[in-house]
Amino acid sequence: MVQALPPRPSARSAVPAFRVMEILAAVERLRAEGRDVISLSAGEPSAGAPRAVASAAARVHECNDHLGYTPPLGTAPLRRAVAEHYERWYGLDVSPEDVAVTTGASGALVLTFLAAFDAGDRVAVCRPGYPAYRNTLAALGAEVVQLDCGAGTRFQPTPALLDAAVAAHGPLQGLVVAGPANPTGTMLEPAEMAGLARWCAEHGVRLISDEIYHGIVHGAPAGATGPGGGPYRGASAWEHDRDAVVISSFSKYWGMTGWRLGWALMPRDLAAPVAALAGNISLCPPAAAQHAAVEAFTPEALAEAERAVEQFGRSRRLLLDALPDLGWGGTAPADGAFYLYADLGAQLERHGSSLEWCRRLLEEEAVAVVPGLDFDDAGGHRTVRLSFAAGPEQVEEAITRILRFQSRP
Amino acid sequence: MVQALPPRPSARSAVPAFRVMEILAAVERLRAEGRDVISLSAGEPSAGAPRAVASAAARVHECNDHLGYTPPLGTAPLRRAVAEHYERWYGLDVSPEDVAVTTGASGALVLTFLAAFDAGDRVAVCRPGYPAYRNTLAALGAEVVQLDCGAGTRFQPTPALLDAAVAAHGPLQGLVVAGPANPTGTMLEPAEMAGLARWCAEHGVRLISDEIYHGIVHGAPAGATGPGGGPYRGASAWEHDRDAVVISSFSKYWGMTGWRLGWALMPRDLAAPVAALAGNISLCPPAAAQHAAVEAFTPEALAEAERAVEQFGRSRRLLLDALPDLGWGGTAPADGAFYLYADLGAQLERHGSSLEWCRRLLEEEAVAVVPGLDFDDAGGHRTVRLSFAAGPEQVEEAITRILRFQSRP
Repeated sequence: MVQALPPRPSARSAVPAFRVMEILAAVERLRAEGRDVISLSAGEPSAGAPRAVASAAARVHECNDHLGYTPPLGTAPLRRAVAEHYERWYGLDVSPEDVAVTTGASGALVLTFLAAFDAGDRVAVCRPGYPAYRNTLAALGAEVVQLDCGAGTRFQPTPALLDAAVAAHGPLQGLVVAGPANPTGTMLEPAEMAGLARWCAEHGVRLISDEIYHGIVHGAPAGATGPGGGPYRGASAWEHDRDAVVISSFSKYWGMTGWRLGWALMPRDLAAPVAALAGNISLCPPAAAQHAAVEAFTPEALAEAERAVEQFGRSRRLLLDALPDLGWGGTAPADGAFYLYADLGAQLERHGSSLEWCRRLLEEEAVAVVPGLDFDDAGGHRTVRLSFAAGPEQVEEAITRILRFQSRP
Repeated sequence: MVQALPPRPSARSAVPAFRVMEILAAVERLRAEGRDVISLSAGEPSAGAPRAVASAAARVHECNDHLGYTPPLGTAPLRRAVAEHYERWYGLDVSPEDVAVTTGASGALVLTFLAAFDAGDRVAVCRPGYPAYRNTLAALGAEVVQLDCGAGTRFQPTPALLDAAVAAHGPLQGLVVAGPANPTGTMLEPAEMAGLARWCAEHGVRLISDEIYHGIVHGAPAGATGPGGGPYRGASAWEHDRDAVVISSFSKYWGMTGWRLGWALMPRDLAAPVAALAGNISLCPPAAAQHAAVEAFTPEALAEAERAVEQFGRSRRLLLDALPDLGWGGTAPADGAFYLYADLGAQLERHGSSLEWCRRLLEEEAVAVVPGLDFDDAGGHRTVRLSFAAGPEQVEEAITRILRFQSRP
């Protein structure tokens, strides 16, 4: 018989390559050459997990026990601990059955997208935004509609932008929001979240709110507090819409990126589909991490996390104070998370694009910054994202180097 | 405006519920009542990880370091260690770049299915078989073709079955095989794997070989050995077809189910798509597990794993020796893994279905066994899967209880 053509990769796996990968590879190369590279590229707190969580994980491994499969949506104690966290932070009554523990927020996104959307469903995301939203949605067959969210709407979506998207593309089935957002660090104010939730309810649209940066707040809206006048942690979609999916994680506030542990609050109609999908596509989240993460909610662990947030605040202040000297074109409101998203302004005249600026900065001064194109395939050639998760000393030295780089003839 | 209908779950999330979930819930209930339940239900070795791996994980957590994101396809040392493992076990020359470390074999399956197949592609799987293959493929939009693999083909697919599937359904784009398989424990002999690989090459079909139970071998085919006359570990697809995807894991041979760490050998054409997809849908596999798992390949850790395999062999012998007394209708060749898949034969006349037999056995004698319907939606009402991963003492007591259950008037 005639030999058939060999199998080929799927069309849907043609995910655009991240520009940041080129930067990260260059970082590795320079470090191998002995260069002292400062990386403002990764959205990754340097302090690591709270001490009590790390110790609990060490103990679990030392006795080499409790490391079998857990239930697909997580252990009962961790689901209970996450549920109680919503009472403490938001005054919300959440049941352990509402909580799906997942393999990072990434695992929660895949489960949510599969459970909420069929192939061909139209889902809106923000531009600029976290690229995995649109790439994962596209790989799962959704039609991604990008909402251009610029300075005029504080880099967040609005009902007017959603109405325009419906007029241009047809009815939506989903909307993904994030506040604080990546790459902008900009929060969604409570009234904005309420407006978006109302629009979604009126249009039969599933709201998915990525709240992974909650708790890392630098500028609360006037009068906003947590329960009992406590700290404001961000606006949660579940304060407005129990049909929404809330996604969060231990990665950012608790500094546990490599642990791969997150969760989602699932509306009642998605609970059974998500449980069935999870049992098939992931079996369960990492077991040791689940046992240890229960310790993340103790007063000591929360105090450690708050000290990390203070450090992010210090780093942010250093960057904001340096902005006049840096002379860039403008930034998104960096009122949450640990990112500064900036238009390079006059620097673009010299370097042509933010990608080229990043390449040369890394080569000449060994500072790694992420170019904007990964987050914004329209305007990202003008922008960069600086992560200040690495701490004030690193940020201070980076500013010195960037100023030296920019002042070169 | 008129209120829209609330959002609904996706059609593709309508995954059939596992019967085993009912059994597992009943196990929990009986244990809470203080009953001494013996579970032959989970495919989960009871010994846990090799000592050196557990200690390495404890150390990594104790110093709370190296727990940030790793590269999406795993750390360089672990990719190298897995590549070397293929030289040692199969005499295969595998490069670290061929190895994609994943969040369990589950993570490898999702990445592989996304990278290899588009929605509408036709993929063949075996019946009986691991239900997550067909449920995950269906959720990702593939058309699943079930091959009825019975005693006549040692519960494995053959070129003749594939030809018949093509004649009935049209050309295939993929084939998923497993040897040793779940639920049968039946191996694929080298000549069978060679024949399937040749058929796939001739028909342009992507072969996906789940080799998660490799190393747990009770009856090697005559004359089959590993390199240098060493132990036979199972037939690997990469011995015959480098366009195939090989999937494996630390879960079974090394007893690390809850660690969620697996891998795939990716053909060159899938390497870039898989890397891009992994960076979006999972970011990276669990970091601490990756650092610790390098220790799984030391002689001491491998010796520990071999002692676990000896225990599985002892348990298997107990079950096989009891078969005449049990008086069932027939079993699949249990030459690998830790499963016995049996037709209940005359027992069905009394209980009607294997699900009912399992329910009553659990209620009356507190022995948990998985009914076959999860693995075979056609003939599974006659069958059960017994896992002997829990060890010989448990198996011996289970046999006593099952015989007592069956001898009741």
